Amino acid sequence: MHIEVGVLADLGHAALCRAGMKDTDARLSAEVLVLADSWGIFTHGIKNLPGYLRRIDAGGIRRDGQPRVIAEGPAWAIVDGAQSLGMVGSVFAMDLALAKARSAGFGYVGLGNSCHFGAAGCYAVRAAHDGMLGWAMANDTPTVTAPGARGAVLGSNPFAFAAPVEGEDPLLLDFATSTVAGGKLFAAAAEGRKVPEGWVVDDAGRPTTDPSVWPKAGALTPMAGHKGYGIALMIEVLSAVVTQGPAMAEVLSWSFADPSLPTGHSAAFLAMNVRAMPGGEALGRRLAEMARRIRALPKAPEGGRILLPGEREWAFRKRALREGLELPGDVAHAVDRLRERCGIQP
Amino acid sequence: MHIEVGVLADLGHAALCRAGMKDTDARLSAEVLVLADSWGIFTHGIKNLPGYLRRIDAGGIRRDGQPRVIAEGPAWAIVDGAQSLGMVGSVFAMDLALAKARSAGFGYVGLGNSCHFGAAGCYAVRAAHDGMLGWAMANDTPTVTAPGARGAVLGSNPFAFAAPVEGEDPLLLDFATSTVAGGKLFAAAAEGRKVPEGWVVDDAGRPTTDPSVWPKAGALTPMAGHKGYGIALMIEVLSAVVTQGPAMAEVLSWSFADPSLPTGHSAAFLAMNVRAMPGGEALGRRLAEMARRIRALPKAPEGGRILLPGEREWAFRKRALREGLELPGDVAHAVDRLRERCGIQP
Repeated sequence: MHIEVGVLADLGHAALCRAGMKDTDARLSAEVLVLADSWGIFTHGIKNLPGYLRRIDAGGIRRDGQPRVIAEGPAWAIVDGAQSLGMVGSVFAMDLALAKARSAGFGYVGLGNSCHFGAAGCYAVRAAHDGMLGWAMANDTPTVTAPGARGAVLGSNPFAFAAPVEGEDPLLLDFATSTVAGGKLFAAAAEGRKVPEGWVVDDAGRPTTDPSVWPKAGALTPMAGHKGYGIALMIEVLSAVVTQGPAMAEVLSWSFADPSLPTGHSAAFLAMNVRAMPGGEALGRRLAEMARRIRALPKAPEGGRILLPGEREWAFRKRALREGLELPGDVAHAVDRLRERCGIQP
Repeated sequence: MHIEVGVLADLGHAALCRAGMKDTDARLSAEVLVLADSWGIFTHGIKNLPGYLRRIDAGGIRRDGQPRVIAEGPAWAIVDGAQSLGMVGSVFAMDLALAKARSAGFGYVGLGNSCHFGAAGCYAVRAAHDGMLGWAMANDTPTVTAPGARGAVLGSNPFAFAAPVEGEDPLLLDFATSTVAGGKLFAAAAEGRKVPEGWVVDDAGRPTTDPSVWPKAGALTPMAGHKGYGIALMIEVLSAVVTQGPAMAEVLSWSFADPSLPTGHSAAFLAMNVRAMPGGEALGRRLAEMARRIRALPKAPEGGRILLPGEREWAFRKRALREGLELPGDVAHAVDRLRERCGIQP
């Protein structure tokens, strides 16, 4: 299926409005999802909207949930997501972190009582577009094992960092703390492909190349072993433990759990206002110079390029905005379902 | 060689005093180094002191360098390390981050014009001992390659995170963004051991199990491929780019470069005062509960335990404080050299 980026965003917007969400929240949420699609991160984009809508219909996500500040200080705030859609609470919290950073230089905002927030990079990049450094991370229902454990211990807790680069798109690091994101296993299973050994273990903790064992059984592996496990645990602390929310197995799956229940996801957003610091106005220029130096380094023998984090995603987006998106089968299926909901003829 | 932890610290203190450093700085620096040794991280402890002393003797590290605040705001500060020993500037900067966090809730301190700071965890743990969350990270001379590159691009830029856990030692995550720290290759080479494939590549970018190719040629691999490369780049931004210091190949090796030159290392320290946040006084209890839940999870078939980050290091330290340290050959050699400098009979 081929579709324009703007048409996809309009469809998401319309579907969320039809589900009873207010116009501004629906627009903002659809744009977050389609931003991920436009980067080629189809696993975290509009594909997930039918699942979110199922939770809205059943009451697990509150269509009228409005995030509110529970407590705050000069450089921090704790936000109650009020069971709103993950994108609604996350944009609210990220923008509050930016406001804190604007006045104090640094801002941390913990978001509780939220849901799956999609691609972490969608929030971190808001900081970079504002000339700041930004971070976004979240916990999730356990899918990833830990060294010494059998079965899942923590979510694939994603982490994103963004920084402005003068004259080009922001540096954008966005990764799951599992070896690969679960979405890649779903995609492989849907297409009947095997996956490389080391991505997933079966129920007994044995490595397997069959992506379909998961998530019914088995677990993803943590990236870089104990290091990825440690980073995921740090994210669990910053999102769930600080906000006093559900942690580890207390968090429900947004896609598989009873849709009438709140999932209890938490997230954390940080921003650093480098513009307030000495030479901060030239940070983007210094990052552009660093990018230039990295690209000029000797290349690996097999040829190719040294990419900056996010460079592939921004190139994908440029082409998507120019030529439209060619949707994989599972995303096209979601679009069909959204069109049905909205009474739109394909 | 067997030695008491306190005796090792006294030796480091004495050697730094003899080199002309003031008593308080010498004491604090020796204690940072011996803390790493007491965790079993011998690659980042007293073993490196003869190399630091060579730089002090030659002028690359200033024995009387006193860090000073260049600029600051409610939640941040930029510190000039004044070419002091890495430990002196880093403790100053971490403690300033804690002070900022105490008043604003969060504190970031960038440290420029410093040197190799040893084990990142030594600074992050100061936050946990104060009931806060803490981070420490630093750049270094390039030793690690990047996807698509041939040769070294970034340092093995270390990252540490610490959090208080009620009734036990802090959670302590401390890792190099290379697959393994360079010190492990030195140790393997010194002992004539091969290393697992995937740790290091040769001059042509080919994987090798011979640790001795590095650092004369070749490069370490980044942990988890592009993810570790991205994290190292984030650390480079937070330490060097924000403080306007040398970055990537502009940073000199503290051990190999002309000891009369400043190395130009930068570092970043962050602290978050959870005690100011709702329920923050009970964060340590919630982390203890999380630790209990993790330890109670099903274990891998080969037996063993699920460790919390830092658990192995704290157990090592407990035993070291009780029974003393059994030093590996290269550390014992450094101790011999320090004793010679101090005129102490072995």
